[in-house]
Amino acid sequence: MTENSTTSGERAPGSVPDPAGARRVLIVSAHPDPRSLTASLTGFAADELRRAGHEVRISDLYAMKWKAVLDADDFPSRPAGDRLDVMAASEHAYATGTLTADVRAEQERLRWADAVILQFPLWWGAVPAILKGWLDRVLSGGFAYGENAKPPYGEGELAGRRALVSVTHGAGSPSLAARGIHGPLPELLFPLQHGALFFLGMSVLEPFAVPDAADLDPAGYRAATAGYRARLAGLFTEQPLPYRRLTDEEYTRELALRPGRERPGSTGFGLHLR
Amino acid sequence: MTENSTTSGERAPGSVPDPAGARRVLIVSAHPDPRSLTASLTGFAADELRRAGHEVRISDLYAMKWKAVLDADDFPSRPAGDRLDVMAASEHAYATGTLTADVRAEQERLRWADAVILQFPLWWGAVPAILKGWLDRVLSGGFAYGENAKPPYGEGELAGRRALVSVTHGAGSPSLAARGIHGPLPELLFPLQHGALFFLGMSVLEPFAVPDAADLDPAGYRAATAGYRARLAGLFTEQPLPYRRLTDEEYTRELALRPGRERPGSTGFGLHLR
Repeated sequence: MTENSTTSGERAPGSVPDPAGARRVLIVSAHPDPRSLTASLTGFAADELRRAGHEVRISDLYAMKWKAVLDADDFPSRPAGDRLDVMAASEHAYATGTLTADVRAEQERLRWADAVILQFPLWWGAVPAILKGWLDRVLSGGFAYGENAKPPYGEGELAGRRALVSVTHGAGSPSLAARGIHGPLPELLFPLQHGALFFLGMSVLEPFAVPDAADLDPAGYRAATAGYRARLAGLFTEQPLPYRRLTDEEYTRELALRPGRERPGSTGFGLHLR
Repeated sequence: MTENSTTSGERAPGSVPDPAGARRVLIVSAHPDPRSLTASLTGFAADELRRAGHEVRISDLYAMKWKAVLDADDFPSRPAGDRLDVMAASEHAYATGTLTADVRAEQERLRWADAVILQFPLWWGAVPAILKGWLDRVLSGGFAYGENAKPPYGEGELAGRRALVSVTHGAGSPSLAARGIHGPLPELLFPLQHGALFFLGMSVLEPFAVPDAADLDPAGYRAATAGYRARLAGLFTEQPLPYRRLTDEEYTRELALRPGRERPGSTGFGLHLR
């Protein structure tokens, strides 16, 4: 792994500054070491996006000492001694503006952003605990789910915003490809990309991945950032994943896909792609 | 949701005490409230298994104030100032016996156990952050993965042990069934069941799930525990999921399934089931 080796003279076609097209991007980054590949890619993305005229904020969860564990302290206005029903407690705290300040700040950043990038290493096929704790706590009742939230899978609180999942992983590409033993990366990311980001209404792009992350040499890092640069240039123009919106036409009241709606031969997670 | 309402006079056929068949079971439980459905099911399982003559230990992660976030403090013997390479640092700490005491204790409990039950609410299609942090930290380099660990997917450190994932979720069953919008539960659990538990060599059973967990009335709780009782009775006799072992015959050196090995029509995660 090398440090950020981008040459500031280089610029990809899509990243030419265009004040008219300036947008706001939130990068949520999760690695314990500020010299990690994750941190380098976060810095690289911020530089690229700023040079393209965008405004960038970074939620560096480790640097923020983000509280990962959702517990009773998240709902300080809750009557002491009540059994903790997470959905009810978070819906009530959201409605009364009594979620903790760290959670409210992240919800504001999500609303502020036109695009959100999640940058993390894939640990056990999923996000690190600190980022899972960001999802568990920030995507609260009322904001993200429950009867008082906007309808999921299409019209959620974050509708109109874009999402890009950017992961590094120690495994080689073939082991996370269609026939790979760890499972295809898009399927591993389905709960995050579809079940959380699209659930809140975001337009989710194909994930960006850097494989063999433990053994990346300078040439490998340059190749990775070149690939990332192209994806960042398309952040607001790429076609999002064609997830199926939750409508009566598509899904039953029990939230199962109606018979015959799927593309021929698709099963499992694939049913929910148009 | 009701509290544990098991009647001690009831006993399912499979749970008759049999000292000759006494085994050791570790339950890892993750919910912030000791009066939660999760906690009730953990208590129910412990009672059932003890009445059947088994020895039970419980890792109640919230009660233990489990440290969820993997960081530099996990490797106290690491040279200060070194960049944190998680794999290298955890492999070294494992090899030198310098992992933190909490992590070493959980690794010992896993080795002690003949079966492990993970009991948790499904949050955003996955384990709560505190349980993700248990996986991230306890399944360290050397113990779980890396060149010095036992070979994955078949012969790992926990080979010969059984694993049962027991989840509660607020969604209704159809939304997590084959055509459900949240994705089929077995696919959501694949990274955990296959990518972590089977990765370490465990024999993984079909998951046990309690749907509609937010609205469970006493009758619903009785039905849930009746179903759970049957599964617990089969903990050591049920046929495990037929995950494919990592052998040269089945997989390439790049860990992709060889052409033609799959059952006809299977794709994605399904390729890795015999």
